[in-house]
Amino acid sequence: MREVTFAVTQMACTWDRAANIANAADLVEKAAAKGANVVVLQELFETPYFCIDTDKAHFAHATPADANPALEALKPLAEKLDVVIAVSFFEKAGDRFFNTLAMIDAGGELLGFYRKSHIPDFPNYEEAFYFDQGDTGFTVFDTKFCRIGGAVCWDQWFPEAARIMTLRGAEVLIYPTAIGRDSNMPGYDSKQHWQQAMQGHAASNMVIVAASNRVGVEQGEGGSIAFYGGSFIANQFGDKVAEAGEDDTEIATATFDLDAVAEMRRRWGMFRTRRTDIYGALTETAPPELMDDRAAP
Amino acid sequence: MREVTFAVTQMACTWDRAANIANAADLVEKAAAKGANVVVLQELFETPYFCIDTDKAHFAHATPADANPALEALKPLAEKLDVVIAVSFFEKAGDRFFNTLAMIDAGGELLGFYRKSHIPDFPNYEEAFYFDQGDTGFTVFDTKFCRIGGAVCWDQWFPEAARIMTLRGAEVLIYPTAIGRDSNMPGYDSKQHWQQAMQGHAASNMVIVAASNRVGVEQGEGGSIAFYGGSFIANQFGDKVAEAGEDDTEIATATFDLDAVAEMRRRWGMFRTRRTDIYGALTETAPPELMDDRAAP
Repeated sequence: MREVTFAVTQMACTWDRAANIANAADLVEKAAAKGANVVVLQELFETPYFCIDTDKAHFAHATPADANPALEALKPLAEKLDVVIAVSFFEKAGDRFFNTLAMIDAGGELLGFYRKSHIPDFPNYEEAFYFDQGDTGFTVFDTKFCRIGGAVCWDQWFPEAARIMTLRGAEVLIYPTAIGRDSNMPGYDSKQHWQQAMQGHAASNMVIVAASNRVGVEQGEGGSIAFYGGSFIANQFGDKVAEAGEDDTEIATATFDLDAVAEMRRRWGMFRTRRTDIYGALTETAPPELMDDRAAP
Repeated sequence: MREVTFAVTQMACTWDRAANIANAADLVEKAAAKGANVVVLQELFETPYFCIDTDKAHFAHATPADANPALEALKPLAEKLDVVIAVSFFEKAGDRFFNTLAMIDAGGELLGFYRKSHIPDFPNYEEAFYFDQGDTGFTVFDTKFCRIGGAVCWDQWFPEAARIMTLRGAEVLIYPTAIGRDSNMPGYDSKQHWQQAMQGHAASNMVIVAASNRVGVEQGEGGSIAFYGGSFIANQFGDKVAEAGEDDTEIATATFDLDAVAEMRRRWGMFRTRRTDIYGALTETAPPELMDDRAAP
C-alpha cells in the first residue's frame, strides 16, 4: 500500500510576474493543506501565454534554470510542505531557449529538468518562434513519493511520449498545459478532445494522468484564447476521477494506491505482449497527406 | 464531401456454425438496409469463443483462407449489397494457425488478410495456445469507400498499432472483439477501460474507430465470460457517437464526411510535429517491472 495524493491546479495570469508566482505558491499551500503529495502547476504561469504572439520582446521573460524566480520561490515551499512541485518555465540556456519543466522534490531538492519535445506552431500557439525542440528526451523523475513522467502541453497529444515515459518507469504522467477556445476557430471546442487523448494514454498505459491547465481570457494581436481550465486527474483505466471547472482558480485532488495500480498494470499483460519487432514504423516520418502546410488557412 | 456510414454489430454465438454465419449475414443485410457502407463483424463469430479453454479439438475449427465458410457466404453478400465486410476467422495456413481478419470489398472481392499481431494468453483468453503471432504487420485495406486499418481485439490496447495504421493511411480503425466480464475476476469490469483505450486512439490519431464485440455468456472449464457488447463507433475526437447495449443482437451506425475528417487531421498538426528522432525506445522490450509472470495469480 503506497497512497499518493496528486493535485492539479489552475489560475489566470497577468503581466505582474511576482503576483503570478505568489498565486502559484498559494495554490501549492492550499493543495498541501488538502493532503497533496504532488502538485502540478500549469504551463508558463509566470506570465500570460505570450506565445499567442510572435514578439522578440518576450524573450526577456526567459531565465537560466539556476536563476528562475518561480523556482527560487517554490523550492523552500517544497521543503516546508514536503510536497513535490512540477514547475513549468521559459528557460534560457546559453543561446538556446526551451519550454522547460523542473521537478522539485519534496524537501526542496531540484531533481532535474525536462525540455518540451513537441513544439506547436500555429496561430495563437506560436511556440516555435520562442522554443527550440527539447533535447532531453522523455524524462521520468524519481521523486520521494513516486516516479513521475513529466511532459508539457502539446506533448500530451502524442501516444509515443506517454508510452516511452511508461516504459521508463513512470507511474503518473503530468502535463502542465495552456489550451483554450480559440477566436480563430469559432465553433470549434477542443476541450473534450484534449481530455480524451490523455485519458487514452492513461488507459493504454495503465498509469495515472494529471493535467493542469490555465483559466482566463488572453488577447493577442491576431486573436484571443479563452483558456478553459478543466484540469483533471484520470485513473489507470482512463476515467476522470477529479476535474476542475472552466473559469476559476481551482485545485482538484485524487488519491491512489500506486502499489495496487502497479500490480494491476503488470498483471494486465499489455507490456509483455507488445510486438517490438513490428513497431519500427513509429520512427518514420508521416506521409505528406498527414502533414499540414503551415500556410494552410 | 465523402460520406461513409459504418456499422458495428454484435450477436451471441453457439456451436451451430451454419447458424452463426446465417446470423452474421442477417446482421450485414440489416446494416446495409440502415445505409451502412462498411460492416464490422465481431471476432471469431463462427463458433463460441473457444479460447476460453485450451483444447486441441478446437483446432478443427480452423480453415484455410480460401475455404472458410463465413467468407464464402459473405462475399456474395458484399457484392449484392455493395458493402465492405470485415470478417474475423480462425485461419490454418499450412502448419501455422492465425487469428485472421479478411477484408471483403464492396463488390465481393477479397482485398487481403491481416493476422492478429498481439496475442493474449491469460486465463479465459488462452489465445497463445491456438494462434501464432501475426506475420503480416499492421495492415491498411484500400476499400471502395475508405482506407481501413484492420486490427483484432487485443491489438486494441496498443497505441503503437493504432499509430502505425494511421501512418499507413488508415481513416478508420476497426476492431472485431471478444471481451467480457470474467468470472475469474469478480468485481472487476473492463468495459469502460476497453472503450477508453480505443477512444484514445481515435483522439490521438484523429481517426474514426469502430469496434464490434460479442454478447452472451459462455462457459469454459475454468470459468465463464459474460460478453458485454458495447460495440461502438468513436469520432476523430474520441467521442462515442454510436453504441450498442450489453445484451442483445444489435447494430449501431454512424456517418462521417471522411474528407472533412482528413482535413481536420491534417490541419491539427500532430503529424508534422512528431519527434521521430526520439521515438526509438518504442521498439525496446519493456522492463521486467512491467512484465507479468504467466504464473501470477
